[in-house]
Amino acid sequence: METLPLEPWTGESATEVIRASLQAGRDVVSANKGPVAHALDDLRSLAVRHGVSYRFESAVADGLPVFNLIEHTLPAAGITEISGLFNSTSNVVLDALAEGVSLSDAIAQAVSEGIAETDPSFDLDGLDAAVKLSALCAAVWGRRLPLENVEVEPVDESVRARAVAARESGGRLVSMGTISLVDGAPANARVRLADIKPENMFYPLRGASLGLCIKSELLCPVSVMSHRPTVKDTAYGLLSDILSMARGSYPTRGTRLAYDAG
Amino acid sequence: METLPLEPWTGESATEVIRASLQAGRDVVSANKGPVAHALDDLRSLAVRHGVSYRFESAVADGLPVFNLIEHTLPAAGITEISGLFNSTSNVVLDALAEGVSLSDAIAQAVSEGIAETDPSFDLDGLDAAVKLSALCAAVWGRRLPLENVEVEPVDESVRARAVAARESGGRLVSMGTISLVDGAPANARVRLADIKPENMFYPLRGASLGLCIKSELLCPVSVMSHRPTVKDTAYGLLSDILSMARGSYPTRGTRLAYDAG
Repeated sequence: METLPLEPWTGESATEVIRASLQAGRDVVSANKGPVAHALDDLRSLAVRHGVSYRFESAVADGLPVFNLIEHTLPAAGITEISGLFNSTSNVVLDALAEGVSLSDAIAQAVSEGIAETDPSFDLDGLDAAVKLSALCAAVWGRRLPLENVEVEPVDESVRARAVAARESGGRLVSMGTISLVDGAPANARVRLADIKPENMFYPLRGASLGLCIKSELLCPVSVMSHRPTVKDTAYGLLSDILSMARGSYPTRGTRLAYDAG
Repeated sequence: METLPLEPWTGESATEVIRASLQAGRDVVSANKGPVAHALDDLRSLAVRHGVSYRFESAVADGLPVFNLIEHTLPAAGITEISGLFNSTSNVVLDALAEGVSLSDAIAQAVSEGIAETDPSFDLDGLDAAVKLSALCAAVWGRRLPLENVEVEPVDESVRARAVAARESGGRLVSMGTISLVDGAPANARVRLADIKPENMFYPLRGASLGLCIKSELLCPVSVMSHRPTVKDTAYGLLSDILSMARGSYPTRGTRLAYDAG
């Protein structure tokens, strides 16, 4: 089980630790999105070669079934777009800014609620969500998405007026990530501030809540959301990976997701 | 593949057809909730005895992954409650009533949009949602829930004032189904009209959209929603069952869901 801190630009040292474990013939369960974003193909090949499993349900959106959802419940759907609220700190801070609170007070409030880390710059500058988009891209489409190809719009003091205006017009300014597949390649990868109205499916997601919407060729848009998860829910994602291994999840023929050799 | 019309009180003749097919050694994929609600244990035993599969992803909420979601992505979560918008006709009609439209005009509008059947009484009296609750109860908890044990609140002319009042106070009157597991037995099974506000996760579900929320012991509430599905999405659910069989979905040890003997 691997839960090292994330180094967003390289995915190290987690990737090295996972690589060594797989080479030693050990199954790996990881909550880390870095290795998925940067080295999924390598790690998957290693797992196959050594007859072990590498699973990472908690890598995006804590215990919310994301990778398992796509792998097990959306066969052959032809996924074309994934969008969602991937970073709760950004959205908690934006909601506070919309109430007229200063950025530093908004951050302090998010920290005191246990949602933001003491230094939330990695969340607020959009990089956390960008790594998640990259991990989804690798896992869902088997394509590398370099972080520098993700357009990011940070949450800072300058967006307060937009947050207030959105609230006053009955909406809500949120940080939303989007990625599509166009002609077989990742496209339109961005983390942007969007003014959403109550009719938008993401509108009710407050506090630490996260959610994503999957568009596909065969099925209508499907969304999946977790409501106010905590660190316990990240732990559930790890548990669910261990249980999937224990009950011998089937090999994902025809899909590009978490691979169990067994 | 079985897509016969539903007889809500007995689940026949679909159940008989499925039983005969399983006995003849044929895999069965069904979009029918009646057999799940009334005879799941029997049909599952038959499938095991004859070494075949019986799957029914489309039985509740069209192609939305419901049974596969629970089976494959929420292992050992200890599900305690399921609630949701299970009947789009009721909610489309309620939204029209809220605009001041008469019941007959609201129904005509829903029929013309292809959402309601010409005789929508089965939907509007809450019975359709009740059968879905019963099917979920059987599949998720392995417990029978007789339809007469589900408290239903119909959508009729008399609720128009409530629908209008809900809209005027910034909310929305919807028909919501709920069921919990209390001390190992199904409890609080009801299909009721609820005034929900924009903060409610179901608020954005308009038109034919459906969704449900799953509460559990180990995980925070998780919801899954389909946005404006059509009959094509029901077909996708059938396809997804066939693909699950083709790739040899693992036996659901320790769960009570759709069972593949192979």
